[in-house]
Amino acid sequence: MKSRVLKTLFAVVAVCFTTQLMAQNAESPIRWADKRDGWIQKATESKPELIRQDIKPVAIVRSVADKNAFQGWRMERTNEPVDVLYTQSFKSRKEVILDLGDHYTGYFSFKVKDMDMPTDAPVRFRFTFAEVPGELNANFDDCPANSLSRAWLQDEIITVMRMPSEVTIERRLACRYVKIELLAQSYYDFVFTDLNFRAETSARGKAAELAEGTDPMIKKINEIGLKTLAECMQTVYEDGPKRDQRLWIGDLYLEALANAYSYKNHDLTRRCLYLLAGMSSDDGFLRATVYEHVTERPKIGVNCMDYSLLYGVALLEYLKETGDRATAEDLWPVVKYQVEFARTYLKDNVYDVKKQPEWWLVFDWKDNLDRHASMQGLMTFAIEQSYELAKMLGCEGEVADWPKVVKDMRKASRAMFYDKKLGVVKSGPDAQISYLSQVWMILSETLTQKEAVRALEYVLADDSTCYIGSPYAYHYLIEAMIKSGMEERAREMLITYWGDMVNKGADTFWEVYDPNDDYKSPYKYYPMNSYCHAWSCTPVYFIYKYKDIFQR
Amino acid sequence: MKSRVLKTLFAVVAVCFTTQLMAQNAESPIRWADKRDGWIQKATESKPELIRQDIKPVAIVRSVADKNAFQGWRMERTNEPVDVLYTQSFKSRKEVILDLGDHYTGYFSFKVKDMDMPTDAPVRFRFTFAEVPGELNANFDDCPANSLSRAWLQDEIITVMRMPSEVTIERRLACRYVKIELLAQSYYDFVFTDLNFRAETSARGKAAELAEGTDPMIKKINEIGLKTLAECMQTVYEDGPKRDQRLWIGDLYLEALANAYSYKNHDLTRRCLYLLAGMSSDDGFLRATVYEHVTERPKIGVNCMDYSLLYGVALLEYLKETGDRATAEDLWPVVKYQVEFARTYLKDNVYDVKKQPEWWLVFDWKDNLDRHASMQGLMTFAIEQSYELAKMLGCEGEVADWPKVVKDMRKASRAMFYDKKLGVVKSGPDAQISYLSQVWMILSETLTQKEAVRALEYVLADDSTCYIGSPYAYHYLIEAMIKSGMEERAREMLITYWGDMVNKGADTFWEVYDPNDDYKSPYKYYPMNSYCHAWSCTPVYFIYKYKDIFQR
Repeated sequence: MKSRVLKTLFAVVAVCFTTQLMAQNAESPIRWADKRDGWIQKATESKPELIRQDIKPVAIVRSVADKNAFQGWRMERTNEPVDVLYTQSFKSRKEVILDLGDHYTGYFSFKVKDMDMPTDAPVRFRFTFAEVPGELNANFDDCPANSLSRAWLQDEIITVMRMPSEVTIERRLACRYVKIELLAQSYYDFVFTDLNFRAETSARGKAAELAEGTDPMIKKINEIGLKTLAECMQTVYEDGPKRDQRLWIGDLYLEALANAYSYKNHDLTRRCLYLLAGMSSDDGFLRATVYEHVTERPKIGVNCMDYSLLYGVALLEYLKETGDRATAEDLWPVVKYQVEFARTYLKDNVYDVKKQPEWWLVFDWKDNLDRHASMQGLMTFAIEQSYELAKMLGCEGEVADWPKVVKDMRKASRAMFYDKKLGVVKSGPDAQISYLSQVWMILSETLTQKEAVRALEYVLADDSTCYIGSPYAYHYLIEAMIKSGMEERAREMLITYWGDMVNKGADTFWEVYDPNDDYKSPYKYYPMNSYCHAWSCTPVYFIYKYKDIFQR
Repeated sequence: MKSRVLKTLFAVVAVCFTTQLMAQNAESPIRWADKRDGWIQKATESKPELIRQDIKPVAIVRSVADKNAFQGWRMERTNEPVDVLYTQSFKSRKEVILDLGDHYTGYFSFKVKDMDMPTDAPVRFRFTFAEVPGELNANFDDCPANSLSRAWLQDEIITVMRMPSEVTIERRLACRYVKIELLAQSYYDFVFTDLNFRAETSARGKAAELAEGTDPMIKKINEIGLKTLAECMQTVYEDGPKRDQRLWIGDLYLEALANAYSYKNHDLTRRCLYLLAGMSSDDGFLRATVYEHVTERPKIGVNCMDYSLLYGVALLEYLKETGDRATAEDLWPVVKYQVEFARTYLKDNVYDVKKQPEWWLVFDWKDNLDRHASMQGLMTFAIEQSYELAKMLGCEGEVADWPKVVKDMRKASRAMFYDKKLGVVKSGPDAQISYLSQVWMILSETLTQKEAVRALEYVLADDSTCYIGSPYAYHYLIEAMIKSGMEERAREMLITYWGDMVNKGADTFWEVYDPNDDYKSPYKYYPMNSYCHAWSCTPVYFIYKYKDIFQR
């Protein structure tokens, strides 16, 4: 099922019809419909102000084909100052690439003015906005039909009917490079009089300086991680400011962790937790993703069982960081429902991947990953964390049977998934060995620390193991390594994986990165990758939290 | 020279540098620079309110290839009501052509809304707006480089980032048909919830009904002429609402004539006369075209000697219609300067086409027309009319020598251009015989009425005569025929030429129309033609003014 769902991304099979859910959960103790509007209201109260900054292009650059560069292209500064665009004919130039100097999220505007004579005809431009050089050298119309919407790609055709004119491109953009092409021109000439990028973020404050003597590469990774996080911190935690520009539970969890150790803008976390709760289905199942601009609660939504369970973990972390009991108490019933609903999928203490309706399980961008063991592990982990939350709130009496569920699940997991002889976790009908199966059995404490080390050493040494596809999944791997006491391997892994992106010129970290394939994208077209993606900011969390490991 | 200028359209050679002009006209008695701001102010005071009307599409149509149809395409109504767009998936439909039911000028807006689930990705559209069916079946990127700016062609790429959304396409449009193509889509579906065209015109009031028994084709021509005029009546008399969307003296003259006999919105005429005067060069030469939105007076402008002389004729007509002496007195110095400046081009009473700087002479869209005789005739006509204006204002003392100039010019014309033996006017080194050479020697009363009839009969019967290329030039031909007493031929000509456009499905009359070539355009690409063009509204003037000829 997973592979089919992943292939179609937001597959209809993974979509939940409220009526089905209600039938399954007739006993739900919570009158969700009565509470959700109040939660939306609280989400609105926590909506942060955006901090705006006008960015001027710092250089005119040119694209240089270079087989050693990421995706075969790098940008080279020209000797021309940007000011030539304000004084010299653009009619003769016809094309330019501007460098904003860093990745920014916001709105691009420009002013144009005729020279000598009024322009006698409209002018037509194509503006292309790129996060990485390779994007600027792709023909977006080559985007295959089975990718995501080609409209995510940031090229806009603009007609300027008369001059002088000031134009702001309406869509919000995420980019470092701006290519301007003159597609049609007046008989008479013109110049630009302003080029501006109004950058927006809700990230306030400054993260702490790293300890003196921190490895320069870790410093660099932290800096780029902070930038990635800030770019994704808008009026919600977005997954990516280029795409999808919206809140997903999985991204929220990692962003909130990184934020808690850096900007500490906890209001944004609170807002997102409330927004997710407020947009939940009529009986309480959380949507994996919500849209802050959608005013009506949609009848149908995207649901992912792994994401809905991580919500409780995120709320626990929020409470630990902020001590905001009121919010945690308010949202506790949501957490409880996610666990109780997931429990209806247990058969002999094992998550039943055949039970209908099936749910999309995210875990990683990896089509061939068998998710059964991972799901079993994640669910065990989530119930345990949610129980810790209950205890902090004094609600453990409501869920007194959860510790036994966790215990029973671990036992069942060991019996079903753990190959004692080899010392690894296997998953699915083909007994697949993957990194993530080990990771989730470690995080859920199904394996002992000794077994954990053995399992990780096994997969690290075994080339045939199903490896990891995304920074999101790397997060859990590094966490599992640290939990297993493999601190040096964790440090090494972080430096190798994220450092590799740094070496390839990343200004922000990427949604999907495969060290062996620069063109990797889960969407069949490399420009469709999000080159500033929330879940890739996770080094920030590791570097600050595990100071002894990373700040040296 | 003319052919070169016409080839490059707004050729730089035809452009006047103020410094050159000032050198030539050091004696100019008028301190233009002191008066122009006041004239602009008066133009602003006369700026009409636009009347807005919301137009909903009346039908869904399809393009049908038909070799008997104008430019090979006609629109056929489908059985589907427009409402299907408000209820049925547009993701499945992907494309539609809407018919607004008539030609309109204004702004298109649409609303879209997701169905069932929020759209998870932006949607990309191409909207194409067409005055005639053929436009919708051209690939605008085929527009050759030596045409006008491809940006005049009305296709816009629009990205809708989220739904529900309301989008107004920023540029003003002129069209009857709207094609919507879905270029990229979200995984989820959507419908339109509104499609609206906010039509704008400043034409107020209603033209008189034609006499009972008027020929149905003349009724139709009048109706379409009135629509053409109304579409071009915006905050100035525009030449065409699709292109160039601005005031030209030649168009103004014919529009003001048609308006005087129909809507009688004389304020607009006043505004345009003042605007032209206010935007004249430092020493008083009128620009052939001005932009109402340009706030600074450009240092360089387009000047056409035939157009600048017609300004006085237009002011005379305005005074006759309105009795507004204040305006005519205010602007009289402008008229006087145009004549005096043109007189500096006389050599032995003949306009010297070799004298520098040369000026672009419009007359017609006809590259190979030799304009010498036409220019000589037009100048004679304009001086005589301007002298009539002087007399009405009691200023004839200022220009007492003008009657003699007219007389001398006629005499010189007859000697230089009139072939007594053949009874036709010839022009240029190759002694070209053209319609327009006859026309202007008739309108200037250089030929007697008898000679006029003979000359016209000659060219009408002679296939090798350089024929007429545009409705603008047809105006002067019909006027010349009426002046010569050839009323039936005038009626026949009007019915044949404009009626032919009616028969080919015109909703408004076209900028250039050649009965033998549906693809004719002075801009090397048929969609670049303006299919609603001011100068083609002139039948309205003839039909109302010469009631005996046309209203039967």
